[in-house]
Amino acid sequence: MEMLVRRGYLWQSFEIYGGMAGFIDYGPLGNGLRRNLEDLWRDFFVINERAVEIDTPTIGIEEVFIASGHATSFTDVAIECNSCGRIFRADHFIKEKLDIEVDPTIEAVKEVIREYELRCECEGEFKDPEHINLMFETKIGPGKGKKGYLRPETAQGIFIPFKRLSDYFRDKLPFGVTQIGRAYRNEISPRQGVIRLREFNQAELEYFVDPRNKTHPNFDDVADDFITLVDKFDREHRVTLREAVEKGIIAHQLLAYFVGKTRRFLLKAGLQDDKLRFRQHKDDERAHYAVDCWDAEALTSYGWVEIVGIADRSDYDLSRHTQFSGEDLSVFIPYKEPIKVKKRKVIPSMEKLGPVFKDKAKKIAEMLEKLEDAGDYVELEVDGEKVKVSSEYYEVKEVEEEVHGEKIIPHVIEPSFGLDRITYSILEHAYDKDVVDGEERRVLRLKRWMAPVQVAVLPLLSREEFEKVALEITDELKKAGIFTEYDDSGSIGRRYRRYDEIGTPFCVTIDHQTLEDGSVTIRDRDTTKQIRVKREDLIPTLKELLNSEKDIEEFGEIFRANSS
Amino acid sequence: MEMLVRRGYLWQSFEIYGGMAGFIDYGPLGNGLRRNLEDLWRDFFVINERAVEIDTPTIGIEEVFIASGHATSFTDVAIECNSCGRIFRADHFIKEKLDIEVDPTIEAVKEVIREYELRCECEGEFKDPEHINLMFETKIGPGKGKKGYLRPETAQGIFIPFKRLSDYFRDKLPFGVTQIGRAYRNEISPRQGVIRLREFNQAELEYFVDPRNKTHPNFDDVADDFITLVDKFDREHRVTLREAVEKGIIAHQLLAYFVGKTRRFLLKAGLQDDKLRFRQHKDDERAHYAVDCWDAEALTSYGWVEIVGIADRSDYDLSRHTQFSGEDLSVFIPYKEPIKVKKRKVIPSMEKLGPVFKDKAKKIAEMLEKLEDAGDYVELEVDGEKVKVSSEYYEVKEVEEEVHGEKIIPHVIEPSFGLDRITYSILEHAYDKDVVDGEERRVLRLKRWMAPVQVAVLPLLSREEFEKVALEITDELKKAGIFTEYDDSGSIGRRYRRYDEIGTPFCVTIDHQTLEDGSVTIRDRDTTKQIRVKREDLIPTLKELLNSEKDIEEFGEIFRANSS
Repeated sequence: MEMLVRRGYLWQSFEIYGGMAGFIDYGPLGNGLRRNLEDLWRDFFVINERAVEIDTPTIGIEEVFIASGHATSFTDVAIECNSCGRIFRADHFIKEKLDIEVDPTIEAVKEVIREYELRCECEGEFKDPEHINLMFETKIGPGKGKKGYLRPETAQGIFIPFKRLSDYFRDKLPFGVTQIGRAYRNEISPRQGVIRLREFNQAELEYFVDPRNKTHPNFDDVADDFITLVDKFDREHRVTLREAVEKGIIAHQLLAYFVGKTRRFLLKAGLQDDKLRFRQHKDDERAHYAVDCWDAEALTSYGWVEIVGIADRSDYDLSRHTQFSGEDLSVFIPYKEPIKVKKRKVIPSMEKLGPVFKDKAKKIAEMLEKLEDAGDYVELEVDGEKVKVSSEYYEVKEVEEEVHGEKIIPHVIEPSFGLDRITYSILEHAYDKDVVDGEERRVLRLKRWMAPVQVAVLPLLSREEFEKVALEITDELKKAGIFTEYDDSGSIGRRYRRYDEIGTPFCVTIDHQTLEDGSVTIRDRDTTKQIRVKREDLIPTLKELLNSEKDIEEFGEIFRANSS
Repeated sequence: MEMLVRRGYLWQSFEIYGGMAGFIDYGPLGNGLRRNLEDLWRDFFVINERAVEIDTPTIGIEEVFIASGHATSFTDVAIECNSCGRIFRADHFIKEKLDIEVDPTIEAVKEVIREYELRCECEGEFKDPEHINLMFETKIGPGKGKKGYLRPETAQGIFIPFKRLSDYFRDKLPFGVTQIGRAYRNEISPRQGVIRLREFNQAELEYFVDPRNKTHPNFDDVADDFITLVDKFDREHRVTLREAVEKGIIAHQLLAYFVGKTRRFLLKAGLQDDKLRFRQHKDDERAHYAVDCWDAEALTSYGWVEIVGIADRSDYDLSRHTQFSGEDLSVFIPYKEPIKVKKRKVIPSMEKLGPVFKDKAKKIAEMLEKLEDAGDYVELEVDGEKVKVSSEYYEVKEVEEEVHGEKIIPHVIEPSFGLDRITYSILEHAYDKDVVDGEERRVLRLKRWMAPVQVAVLPLLSREEFEKVALEITDELKKAGIFTEYDDSGSIGRRYRRYDEIGTPFCVTIDHQTLEDGSVTIRDRDTTKQIRVKREDLIPTLKELLNSEKDIEEFGEIFRANSS
């Protein structure tokens, strides 16, 4: 962590004012890494799915979160000290002080406090535990204004304009809608640095499907990948995704597809497979909207940390918003062929109704027509009055009707990515030490395509003739879309170490021979090997190296290894 | 606007719950356009400056905004109706009802209300006008928590970690730090759709410089560009930027450089030069932190709209944060050569002090050494006691010292971009109507590199053999990094019109000849001309077309124009 701060990856926010738990700054390198992660995510989950990306406000009006259930269910159990007034998140406090995993319910917490006579750090007694809502609240407009919340997830911003989105896809399921952006969780007492943030970055895909067809056309692409699964009974499985579906470990193919795709994405981003597993939520652990959920977890110095949640949210959200807004958020799904359906139809006889029921006759006829069947008599309520109509006033016929399709509320499968935790896990998994020239070296083995600085251009000596060429090459590489830094300060050995430490895969050095024949050297971070290439080959060589994991030896003869 | 909503550019947020003024959703196309704008901005203001990008929280603690002055000065004058309780922004209300431009001060508003007997829309009387702070307020943590605000600008997130940033650049001025992200302004009564948002997107560059050197090495790149300037006395100038600096219209070269670069950027993004001007803030209009400020304004259906502000914030922010945090936010600037400075030095005589002042002697000596000069005697306070020391106990000498540099607080020049307003202005400037095949056509003439959908791949007929090839080509184009959509619904004419309307520069059509010889057609949005290219030439041709404004005729023979 010290290295991450010093080198410009992550900083404590508001440091000069004493800091504030739950907030971090991305320095230049951290920001670069996270932006690269976002672009990789777009490539996997937008461009290569039938999906689009949208961007909606981070502030939401109260109605949204009443409908979504967050206003009542997005809570933690908290305990407040009667004496010093400090408030703690109950399950974390109990875990820390007693090393007990307690269910996060009022009852369970109460019992533990009583049984263990748990007290505050100041020795004060706790009040009764309470649910505390975790949304940041604010007020829109002047005066009393209107209540608003900072969104606890980007997902709601996708459900609300669902009609317009469905329109965009011409009502053809399945389709995906994504959003990348901030979300907020007003944690009670965050203590885990980057892991438990009050303001964080999410990338979410809401994949809307016909509930009768939870499959994916590209399942075969990942079906034979082996994966580590921990089910809700804590049983570990090492199986292919195909087996996981066949054995019923994962509920359906579509969830399994996204588990597989998530794993592929995380590996491509630089996580290590043996420090990665997928864990099913236990029945009492799932969010209020989820019917099944699998977390991707990465092993870090904080233990196993949840970095992705892949949930089947069923029709929960669209149904709730339909109910609370009064807008119909269903999709009409046409049958391939219209089908013929036999149904019974009630046909009123106006000739008979008229004389008897007078001015009520028309209303009665309309009500009868709406019935799906009728027996010897029906009872209706007309203008607040009960009316009994016997079968002599109507006929019941069996008719055949053509039905062209049906309205359904789509289900939604949601892979939801915590970008901050993934960024941090990448840094932990990439961090390594080795020995070069007899000295210990710290090196960040980031994937080449993820590195925030991909190439450093270094004049061997700080003399004008070297610097001029180095600056020219820096410009050329930048124009070619390569993240490049120029550096002329300090000995060449020190500069190599600096770039090893921030994870820059390649250093390009301008040396004496450059001035003679224009060639430059490329040094590989991981092996410290160097090759020499002609200046006109530099960009294509670097581009190929950066987009692959090829050995530098394929591009030239190694002339030096373990250079200081 | 109707087209923008229907086609998926911009939507009213929370529409199913009745909407909320000041918030918009970016649909798939609007999001694509704004993301392209952000990437173009990065290219201009990060990659091609000595600058980095960081990302800091949108929530800030109170201390930050007390220091920055926003807690007291980020306000509008509001008037509240005594009868119905509605609150209006005073200057806007007065402009709307009386067509008077009033100074946004309590006094001026009071006078207008009195003079014109201004009343609310409900005929009620107004209370005395008041300053209302425009920051969204929230609470961090449980219970009483800690007061926080949603940031009114991204800039503060750059000033706070200034020390770390300066470190990153090894304290070598000038350097730039940028941030792209959300900012918030709790408008009193926003009524102008996309133009006046409560939650908006900013891209800001804070360019830190030595105050004695407000120049830019690349000024010559833009110095001869002609530009329309409206100075603070409302005089219009049509001059080159070089002239603007020489004549003192723009205060210094660095401001002029960013005015020029901003104009270049906006033109590249698709704004029209004749609907673009730069206007200097009047003395009473500037933000509390600015010593000079030029706005870029675009002519839209809302009139001239401010889309960029380019301000010289001097050392205001760093000085204030130094003062409020107690951290020294200056930079040490070494001289090229150390300079010799003559100064007077007070040299105490311990032999004389010792016997007289005993145990206080050492402290007195230390205090004397710190003085810059001394006369016949000095008065000191030692351990709370006043002590008079006459000149017999010290000597004053003139000495020469070597000084290696000095500490200065950098000044900051800030080009600050309103991405939402720019996005909207691009759409307005791009919107056009013409006549094709005798029918009126609506077309969005977006720059090719800005279009959210750059290429549409269209099978001429919805038959499997056409669709198969079209889908293959769609995949290839996507893999090549081109924003591509596949569309097989509706007649080919209707599909062309749809893509004209959303601004897609090129349609690729798979027709009968494709099945014979593999060739496809490319249709140009602006001219509706078509050429036929071999399939292997498709990607290079499109890439060259998309990165330039070349005529399609350069790439093949026109075989058809004005196709329906």
